[in-house]
Amino acid sequence: MNASSESKNNLEQVVSLAKRRGFIFQSSELYGGINGFWDYGPMGSELKRNVREAWWKFTVHEREDVVGLDATIIMHPRIWEASGHIGGFADPMVDCKDCKKRHRADQLCEEQGAKLIQDGKNWKLPEGTKCTSCGSKNLTEPRSFNLMFKTYVGPVEDESSVSYLRPETAQAIFAQFLNILPTSRKSVPFGVAQSGKSFRNEINPRNFTFRSREFEQMELEFFIRPDEAVELICGRVTTLADNPDLTGKPQDDWGWDVWHKYWVEQRLAWFRSIGLPGDSLVEYWQTREELAHYARACVDIEYAFPFGVQELEGVAARSDFDLSQHQKFSGKSMTVMDDKLRLAVSEMDDAKKAEFRAKTIASWKASGKSEEDAGAFCDLLFEGRYIPHVVEPSLGTDRLVLALLCNAYDEEEVADANGKKEVRTVLRLHPAVAPIKVAVFPLVKNRPELYEKARGVFKRLQRYWNCFWDESGAIGRRYRRQDEVGTPFCVTVDFDTLENDTVTVRMRDSMEQVRMPVSELRSYLEEAMKV
Amino acid sequence: MNASSESKNNLEQVVSLAKRRGFIFQSSELYGGINGFWDYGPMGSELKRNVREAWWKFTVHEREDVVGLDATIIMHPRIWEASGHIGGFADPMVDCKDCKKRHRADQLCEEQGAKLIQDGKNWKLPEGTKCTSCGSKNLTEPRSFNLMFKTYVGPVEDESSVSYLRPETAQAIFAQFLNILPTSRKSVPFGVAQSGKSFRNEINPRNFTFRSREFEQMELEFFIRPDEAVELICGRVTTLADNPDLTGKPQDDWGWDVWHKYWVEQRLAWFRSIGLPGDSLVEYWQTREELAHYARACVDIEYAFPFGVQELEGVAARSDFDLSQHQKFSGKSMTVMDDKLRLAVSEMDDAKKAEFRAKTIASWKASGKSEEDAGAFCDLLFEGRYIPHVVEPSLGTDRLVLALLCNAYDEEEVADANGKKEVRTVLRLHPAVAPIKVAVFPLVKNRPELYEKARGVFKRLQRYWNCFWDESGAIGRRYRRQDEVGTPFCVTVDFDTLENDTVTVRMRDSMEQVRMPVSELRSYLEEAMKV
Repeated sequence: MNASSESKNNLEQVVSLAKRRGFIFQSSELYGGINGFWDYGPMGSELKRNVREAWWKFTVHEREDVVGLDATIIMHPRIWEASGHIGGFADPMVDCKDCKKRHRADQLCEEQGAKLIQDGKNWKLPEGTKCTSCGSKNLTEPRSFNLMFKTYVGPVEDESSVSYLRPETAQAIFAQFLNILPTSRKSVPFGVAQSGKSFRNEINPRNFTFRSREFEQMELEFFIRPDEAVELICGRVTTLADNPDLTGKPQDDWGWDVWHKYWVEQRLAWFRSIGLPGDSLVEYWQTREELAHYARACVDIEYAFPFGVQELEGVAARSDFDLSQHQKFSGKSMTVMDDKLRLAVSEMDDAKKAEFRAKTIASWKASGKSEEDAGAFCDLLFEGRYIPHVVEPSLGTDRLVLALLCNAYDEEEVADANGKKEVRTVLRLHPAVAPIKVAVFPLVKNRPELYEKARGVFKRLQRYWNCFWDESGAIGRRYRRQDEVGTPFCVTVDFDTLENDTVTVRMRDSMEQVRMPVSELRSYLEEAMKV
Repeated sequence: MNASSESKNNLEQVVSLAKRRGFIFQSSELYGGINGFWDYGPMGSELKRNVREAWWKFTVHEREDVVGLDATIIMHPRIWEASGHIGGFADPMVDCKDCKKRHRADQLCEEQGAKLIQDGKNWKLPEGTKCTSCGSKNLTEPRSFNLMFKTYVGPVEDESSVSYLRPETAQAIFAQFLNILPTSRKSVPFGVAQSGKSFRNEINPRNFTFRSREFEQMELEFFIRPDEAVELICGRVTTLADNPDLTGKPQDDWGWDVWHKYWVEQRLAWFRSIGLPGDSLVEYWQTREELAHYARACVDIEYAFPFGVQELEGVAARSDFDLSQHQKFSGKSMTVMDDKLRLAVSEMDDAKKAEFRAKTIASWKASGKSEEDAGAFCDLLFEGRYIPHVVEPSLGTDRLVLALLCNAYDEEEVADANGKKEVRTVLRLHPAVAPIKVAVFPLVKNRPELYEKARGVFKRLQRYWNCFWDESGAIGRRYRRQDEVGTPFCVTVDFDTLENDTVTVRMRDSMEQVRMPVSELRSYLEEAMKV
């Protein structure tokens, strides 16, 4: 897949529309704002709701192998020790000793076409790095800054009460795994989805809502069998090399790399379904050097923003790292009993088991793991148990909303009612995410019969969709106002409506108008809005 | 209105079901939990989503005078100075010097049938107050503890970077008022709604999810004209004494007390519509002594929880206090231009204006306000401007979810298929909030034709609702499992379905079964689920 690395629009147009029409405001603007925080206004809150809702429907409701979770933002601090965030969730920070400006060291280097030097756990600036604010080379050494927001729970402020605002929603899913498994009546493979706020104390928030300190995520942790369990159950493991069909129902014999690619494809299909064109998305496979130590593969799904091609979602194959860490830190077993595995191993004789064990130990040792660990893993498998592995599609909601706005923004020259040329600003949002689905207009407002008829049509449609009533100004101006906020359909009630009970439906994108009976409106619009 | 102060159920039954069936888990239970934090599991997250969705539909989508907002949790700290939270949002705290247990002083007194003594800004324990933990009377004096969670934004931890997690969602609405007004194309009277997380560092969280440190709110700030503006526009002000009809469309001549009562009635109607019986709710009017100094009236809508009759929602008439405070602290005018008012005053001659001014000054002075303020207020009105007043219905989402669970929980003795008596646990949730709307069962799973037919029915219903597929165990057991999580309808596909394309729909509450054609299922269920 190739993305046009050229973005269609410049960011300023989108930012300006976002503010002017109530999509996105700076948080606390009344008091001069607060850096890295953004509020969603009347239109933006609807757009974001629709994005969340479409994700939940696709990820949870339309599947039988995913359930939801809605956990707290503040959790027990041990969770962040287990996850590695307390030790390692940090960015390198440098200060300019002259102008006192603080920079994120890697970004500072990047802006000067250089690369921050990493030496074990230490960072070093390359020769000649300058402060981009004042030009001075008088900079401090880079030092580590933990990105988690800290607070104190309870009335005492001391080390024992330190807690953190979650920097990701994912960890709650791992921490609640033992509660979810028995109550959801699911078994591996299955997933847990969560959407909600996360917080990262970014040194330099930037690019509008793209990198914010408070943001929203939509994350899925999809638990799968280790390949060795698949092999014991199915007698084989299907890998990507076998070129499996990823569009149908997931299969028992899929190995981790098939599951991983399956989720990449699922996510891409969803992005397309809510209106992001395939050629605006880049599928970037992280190199071995870029991968986290526990990750087996990670694909960044990127979008061509006006400020560059940047990550929307990461789809990572994280092995059993997360659940293993929580097992280690909590002292509680994170293994599951797999009935199909138990059945399969019950039919194996000792020779077969010994052969399997030898093969597994050899393979684990070849990838640098210990014989002891491999043996313990086999012992568990022979009991029908294992720690599930996980594939994680992790999406930034605000980034997606920004991508949708950037993609939808369009200006085109059209002729007005008098044939005069004018520029029409139109947000070509997919109906599934558009804040307002239908606007209803009475042609004139001073004819009670016509007005009441239009109110009736409006009230009927309002039962099904978020609708907008507009009775002021020329119809052409009312269309333009709806175009700017992305309303896909405008329904006008006119004098003919009183005669034959038909209305005009005007399409945002083509500006075409069709005439149809009021009785057919609901089914027509329902069909036209389908994802 | 009278509520039966006896609750139907005890809390333990509800807590036990909530955990067993995946509604509510203790946050971070894997690490021993964290006091005052609760997670919503697979069933709970769906229930909460439905509650939020029903509120948004009723409050925003089905009205033309309310728009939404989705603001950040961390905002500029000046907002909390303006709102009074930094100065005054505190609870009295006492420590037991013997056992070191920390208590909220007012609760400690209450538990001993006494009342904490307030003397200006200071608190005092009544004679003889004991530690409820160890019995000692060796307690510290009560001192103030601010309930806002504090954190630092940006890489420097000092006074300039202190910020707070919002203790309520309301303030963002006031802080964004000047952005929302022009972009929403609304004019007073109109409202702004927001739902989201809030945080209060409670000294003693208690009663399950009722008093938590992290919780969710659904708040509406509804902006109205000051009564004086109503009088100038309409020539009169309708008050509650006029016994106005509150069930129809709001009227221009309504005074603040009518608007306030209107919102109390709206909220009660909504609670009833999602399944809380009217007689389980108490409408408590705060006394003059209980009211905040700026409030003109406040009604607590209370529910009879197993642990007592406690507040679900407060509906407060807050005058122009909030917007005035933000005008004072930001230095920016929070007044609106009201076209109807401007028109009305443009038709007044000087004598009429002088008469109105004299009357207004006299009335303001009578209620202890200054002549200067009254004069300035009249000057503004004569320009067509004023600071809007506000009526605020403020609801705790978690409290409502808990009330719905407590209300819905039921145990009844029924006969099983063999006539043997057993206890059926059933959650009688309203279909609008039930986590699963429809469960679909194939009568048997080893008949491919029947199985595929059932899958087809399931897939069709899944397009519209959150559905559950269950193929294991006797039908009776499958019913019971759905009863426990409140699924209102179960659809069974059996051998007759293959003959005549009809299915059995079984009702949760009555356990009645009706037979109907597959083609009528959608419209039947749609009708049965209506709020």
